[in-house]
Order: sequence, then structure tokens, then C-alpha cells
Amino acid sequence: MAAEIICVGTELLLGDILNSNAQFLAQQLAALGIPHYYQTVVGDNPTRLCRVIQTAIDRGAELLIFTGGLGPTPDDLTCETLAQFFDAPLIEDPEIVADIAQKYAQRGRVMNPTNRKQALIPQGAMVLPNPAGTAPGIIWQPRPSVTLLTFPGVPSEMQRMWRETAIPYLQSQGWGKSIIYSRTLKFWGIPESELAQKVRDYFDLTNPTVAPYAGKGEVKLRISAQAPSLETAQALIAPVEAKLREMGGMYCYGADEETLASVVGKLLQARGQTLSVAESCTGGGLGQMITAIAGSSSYFTGGAIAYNNSVKIRCLQVNPEDLATWGAVSATVAQQMARGVQQLLGTHWGLSITGIAGPDGGTEEKPVGLVYIGLAKPNGTVESFAHQFGHNQDRSAIRHLSACGALDHLRRELLTSVAIAEVST
Amino acid sequence: MAAEIICVGTELLLGDILNSNAQFLAQQLAALGIPHYYQTVVGDNPTRLCRVIQTAIDRGAELLIFTGGLGPTPDDLTCETLAQFFDAPLIEDPEIVADIAQKYAQRGRVMNPTNRKQALIPQGAMVLPNPAGTAPGIIWQPRPSVTLLTFPGVPSEMQRMWRETAIPYLQSQGWGKSIIYSRTLKFWGIPESELAQKVRDYFDLTNPTVAPYAGKGEVKLRISAQAPSLETAQALIAPVEAKLREMGGMYCYGADEETLASVVGKLLQARGQTLSVAESCTGGGLGQMITAIAGSSSYFTGGAIAYNNSVKIRCLQVNPEDLATWGAVSATVAQQMARGVQQLLGTHWGLSITGIAGPDGGTEEKPVGLVYIGLAKPNGTVESFAHQFGHNQDRSAIRHLSACGALDHLRRELLTSVAIAEVST
Repeated sequence: MAAEIICVGTELLLGDILNSNAQFLAQQLAALGIPHYYQTVVGDNPTRLCRVIQTAIDRGAELLIFTGGLGPTPDDLTCETLAQFFDAPLIEDPEIVADIAQKYAQRGRVMNPTNRKQALIPQGAMVLPNPAGTAPGIIWQPRPSVTLLTFPGVPSEMQRMWRETAIPYLQSQGWGKSIIYSRTLKFWGIPESELAQKVRDYFDLTNPTVAPYAGKGEVKLRISAQAPSLETAQALIAPVEAKLREMGGMYCYGADEETLASVVGKLLQARGQTLSVAESCTGGGLGQMITAIAGSSSYFTGGAIAYNNSVKIRCLQVNPEDLATWGAVSATVAQQMARGVQQLLGTHWGLSITGIAGPDGGTEEKPVGLVYIGLAKPNGTVESFAHQFGHNQDRSAIRHLSACGALDHLRRELLTSVAIAEVST
Repeated sequence: MAAEIICVGTELLLGDILNSNAQFLAQQLAALGIPHYYQTVVGDNPTRLCRVIQTAIDRGAELLIFTGGLGPTPDDLTCETLAQFFDAPLIEDPEIVADIAQKYAQRGRVMNPTNRKQALIPQGAMVLPNPAGTAPGIIWQPRPSVTLLTFPGVPSEMQRMWRETAIPYLQSQGWGKSIIYSRTLKFWGIPESELAQKVRDYFDLTNPTVAPYAGKGEVKLRISAQAPSLETAQALIAPVEAKLREMGGMYCYGADEETLASVVGKLLQARGQTLSVAESCTGGGLGQMITAIAGSSSYFTGGAIAYNNSVKIRCLQVNPEDLATWGAVSATVAQQMARGVQQLLGTHWGLSITGIAGPDGGTEEKPVGLVYIGLAKPNGTVESFAHQFGHNQDRSAIRHLSACGALDHLRRELLTSVAIAEVST
């Protein structure tokens, strides 16, 4: 009982739009436990669409989900093509005509003849109502082993139709009896291959499965279980998650929706401590990450964007002689920036970044990608960390990795150091 | 001579990631004038991948472009599967081994055995170098009528490999003889429907075509021409672009790769003037946008992330009584923040943002989405602008729209005001 997603639209082939419908439907099918192994994109072309339908049936799909091609214009051909493929006549549905006419009237417009096309559905098909637009879909079982669902390409309309009509229909037909539930563990500071090496035995599991993926400096392990209920799936996942967390150690910073910024935020909140930042090459990106978390005002005070050296000196009390001697991109200046913002804003922690994001500004001694992170701690000490990001990283990547790296250093410190408050009581 | 895009990855079938690679490649193929009629997504499963390859060949594809499944882990199977399908042995490429080892060494790490897998390529294939990561792709013509290109799934790596190696290769092989060339005009501050109404006659053109797109507060008009050469395409586009720019007036801020930040940067550079920022609800996002532009250090000095009111008072000289009377989110405080940072950092311009990004913190009088932007000018005056972003906008959108809106106000001021320097000479 496998499904296949078929997205129809020449605009997808031209790259004019991102295929977010495929992602939405994929997530929904996974959540319902309906397996699907292929997605296809095809243009508004009847011959090619027929070929795609045949291919899907040949490879065993029993549920075909179509998006796009339901509009009123001559190039919207999905419904006609399905009728043609399965050799059924198109019949005008009077309820759809009435519904479209009413929607036009609501907008103070008169329905025009081209809209009548949207009321034609194959004989034997049911209407899949579209409460948010004029193009309805269909639910159709043209053969005993083939069920078709069609949706318009507009994501908001498609999603509402899916939730309100398609899911109840599918469940009533016995689709989606088991569910797939996933947890994604997130790791920072370890290459994908190294993590994969550590946990390689887990890749052989079948339920739950464990799969790695990487991007933007972080590595994720997705644990997915198939089970008749959420509780059973969670019970299958829990011991594997515990083991993987143990093996990942400090590299594992969180799961699912958690970010480095949200995790640091929770740790600060738990201690009742505050944070300020001093940013050079990231230019505000670290502050932006931290304040992306709603409620961050309870622990994040603010900071200085010390892009120009004059700001480092004037606002952060960086020593001009040290700046001249060591350069703005140095452990000394990173430490002074962190200490400077900590004192300026009176926060428990001060976190700083100074580096060369490129593409210009690198030298042989200090190449593009060299970044220092400074961390001023509540106990009065200051530490710094040097990073050399690869020559292959561009300006945007270096800035992103620097901000994440800074948060990761703070996270590790918050996890391993004893809170001053705890010590003093 | 049609291409087909095949994206490999179970994470795509689970809906964990959005298939932006398919969109990028679709745009690129369109730009090169290489037709493509189908895109397929398939999981990390050799049997199903073989089936997809056969289907693509059966429906006439002569150029197969694969993304994903090139990593070091056991479930990355694209290259092995291709070798198996076309019955070629896998051979370890010593240059790839050396390249991977060197990349690990640069990061101070040792290459482990799983990485060697990435150095295996089918006999007869050429390496498609990956300057930004460890997983290289291949260029392979296993049969006279079939050319394969493989790319890793990480978008930044894939895109760079495409631009640096794949395009020159394809052109050298006679692919892409006619080209589609596009210019995208970008507009800020005007709703899509209003702009579409203004320029509606242009939507009927056939070469070049004009199509509108909207997203994240901006509207774009893409002008696309198909022609045998770049020069011919550009000549077709130029008069239409000129007309659309004229109709768009001040709403049109740039084209193609230009951003509000890059346009503001150029205007500041032309005047030899400097800018600083004071950010409350955006938390650094405005500074990050400005410093995303390489070379921004010549006009951007820095700023204050005044998230907490104490920073507004202490660093930006915001009057505590005004803060108490009018609240942090007010025209008065926005103006004082802009003036404060302008004076603190001694810049020509000071730009500030204070607002309620939500989801909490809104009141009946000051709802979520209320944002004030302050602009301190070189002539000593300060202005502020109020924005009320809609209830349908989330925290992230409100912050983005606020930062873009602030840059747009500065852009308009830079375009319409006379530079002090010009007046005084």
C-alpha cells in the first residue's frame, strides 16, 4: 500500500517556485505511516503526465497524490488527463458550479466561462472540496487497486484540503494504520564521518532506523520508528536515543526543534544568569541567533557590534596598543572584547567574535577563516578559542560557523562549570 | 537532448528537508536552454534508484543529474548504484584520497576509513571536484547517449560545483545552445497585486516574458528572454527593464543579486559616508544584513544591540523618563536610539529599530508587529517611521521586515536628500 506524490506544473520545471507541497505531503505521509518511495515533478503536458501515471502504477503505487494543474487556465490539465488516462468521461458537477459562482459573487465578481472548466470531474469521482479557493480536487478510485487524490498547487489551499478531507478519507479506507515517528539528535563540532564511525552499528537497525545527515557545520542523526501508535514508536526510540546521546557525549547539543541558541538560553535561564555579546566579523549575527528565541530578553541584555576598531576601543575598552601589536583578529582582542562587553553591560557572561570572514582581508599569517572567540565568565576569568575555517568556506558560512561556534563554547562552559550561585550558597 | 533531475535521499521522502536543489538545477537548466521534463525524488535505496535510472533513460533523458547520496556513510549509495547499473567497477582515485586527507588535515583531524568510500568512482568517470566539501561528484558517460553528473546534497557545495565545473563541461559538450537569460527587478514597499496592476500589460509579452513573484515582503518581476546569445537576450530585455523601472519608481530598489543592504552600501560609499545601527527587537539582524556585504567595513562602523532598556539608557543616552512615559516601542525612543548611536560612534547616519516581534509582549495599544524605525541624518535632524506588520506575520518575519524596512527608509533618504559634502563644497 504505497503512495506516490506527483507534482504537476511547468513552473516547477522552470525553477520558478520551490516545491514545498512535496515536502508537506511527504511529512504527512510519514506521520500517517503511509510509505512512499518516489516523488515526481512533471510539466503541464498531458502526454508526459500520462507516462508518469503509468510509471507510478508500474512501480506499485496504489495511492497517487497529485498537486497542481487544477486552475481555470487552458494549461491546467490534470483532471482532463486523469479522465483520459482512465478512460472516463468528464461531467460537469452542478454543486461545484454553484460553489464557484458563489465564491466569485462574494468577491464582487462574476464567474466567467473559463471557470466552468473547474467544475468538470471524471465520472465516478467524488469532489474533494476546496474551502479556500475555487479549484476543487477529486477523490477517485478508477480501478480497485488505484486511488487518486488531486489538489491545487497553492500550498495553503492544498494543506487545508489535505487536513480537512483527505486525512479522514484515507483513514476511513484503512490507509495509515501505523505511524512513523522521528526524533532528530543534533551534534556540533564533530564531522559527519567521525560521528558515523562512532555509531555505525546503529545504522543496521531496522525499527527504529538511524540515519545521519549533515549541513552548515552540524550533523544530525534521525531515529525513526514505525509503530501502530505514537506511544509504541516513542518506546522504540527512547533506548536508542539514550544510547546515541551517550555515545555523542558533549557533541550532542539537542534534538528536533532545539537550536544552539535555544539550548544556551535554557541553561542561562536555569542559572538565572545574563549574557551580552561583542561582535566584529559576524556584525550582529550572533545577537540575531540569540534573539530569534522568544523570551530571550530574560537572559540576553544586548551587545556591541564592534565592526570598526574604533568601536572596540571606545565602547569595549580594547587596548589600542594591543590592537596595534596583535591585530583585531587575535586571542588578546577577543578576550578584551568579551571582558569589555561583560563589564559595559554588567552581565554574567560576555561572548565575543573577531575574525576574517573574507573574501578579502586575509594574509598569509592570518588567512580568511581565522576566527577568535572570547568568553568572559562570571568568575572573572576570560578564555579564548581559535578556529581556522577551511578555504572552501565562503563569507556567509564563516560568519554562520563563527556564531554557532561561539554559542557552542558557551554551552560547553555552562554544562561543565559550576554556577557561581551554587558555589556561594 | 533532454535532462532529468534525480534527487536521492530518504530525508526528502520523509519531508525532513525542502528540495531546494531541484529548484536551483531547474533554474540553471532553464537558463542554459537545456530542456527538462521530469524530476524524480527517490530514497537511499539501490533497487529503487536503479528503477528510476531506467525510467529516465526509457523516457529519453540523455543528461541525468543526481544530487545526494555521496556522503561517507553506509546509506550513501548513489555512486555504487550507478556503477552497478552501468556494470562498471569502482576504483579508488588517489587524488580524491589525497584531497580528502588534506581537507581533514587542515581542520586538524585525521581521515578515517569511512572517508575512503568517497574516493571510489566508477571506471571511466571523471572527478567533479568539490572545493567546499569532502564528497566529490563525477562526470561520466557510461553509454554514448547518456551523460551523468553527480553532486552532494548540501546545496552550497552542489551549487559551487555546478557553476565551477558542470556548466563549462556541459557547454564544451554542446549542451545549451540557445540560452534563457533573466533579469529580476526587485521592489520594496508595494503589494504584489498593486505592482501587477500597474504593469499588467507586460505580462502578455512572449519574448521577453515578464512574471511577478512575491515573498518575505518584497515583490520581484522576472524578465526572461530566450535567444541564441547572451547579447541578443540582453538586447531584448533592456527596453522592457527600463520601462518597468520607470513604472516602479522608488519602489524598485535593484536587480538580481542586489539586496537592500548592498544598494544602501553603494549609496553610502558614493557619498563617503558612514552608518551605525541601534537594534532592539531585531537583536543584531540589521547589522548582520549590512555586514553580509563584503567591503561593508568602508561605510559601516558598528552599533549597539540594545535589547534590554538598560542598554538603551546606558549606551545610547535614551532618556529614562521618555522610556517610562512613551515605552521602549515608541517614536521618541526610536529617534533617541538613532541619535544616540550616531553620536556614540561618530557616524554620518544612525539607524534604529525598536518594536514588538512577538509572540508575546503585545498589548491592545501596542500589538505584536508594531515597529518604529529611527533615522538620524548628517544634518542633525532625526526622523521616525511607524510600521504595523500584520497579525499573520510571525516573530521571524516581523524581524526580517523590520530590518529590511529600516534599510529601505535609509535608501530613500539617500536617494532623495542632497549629500552634505556636495552642499558644503
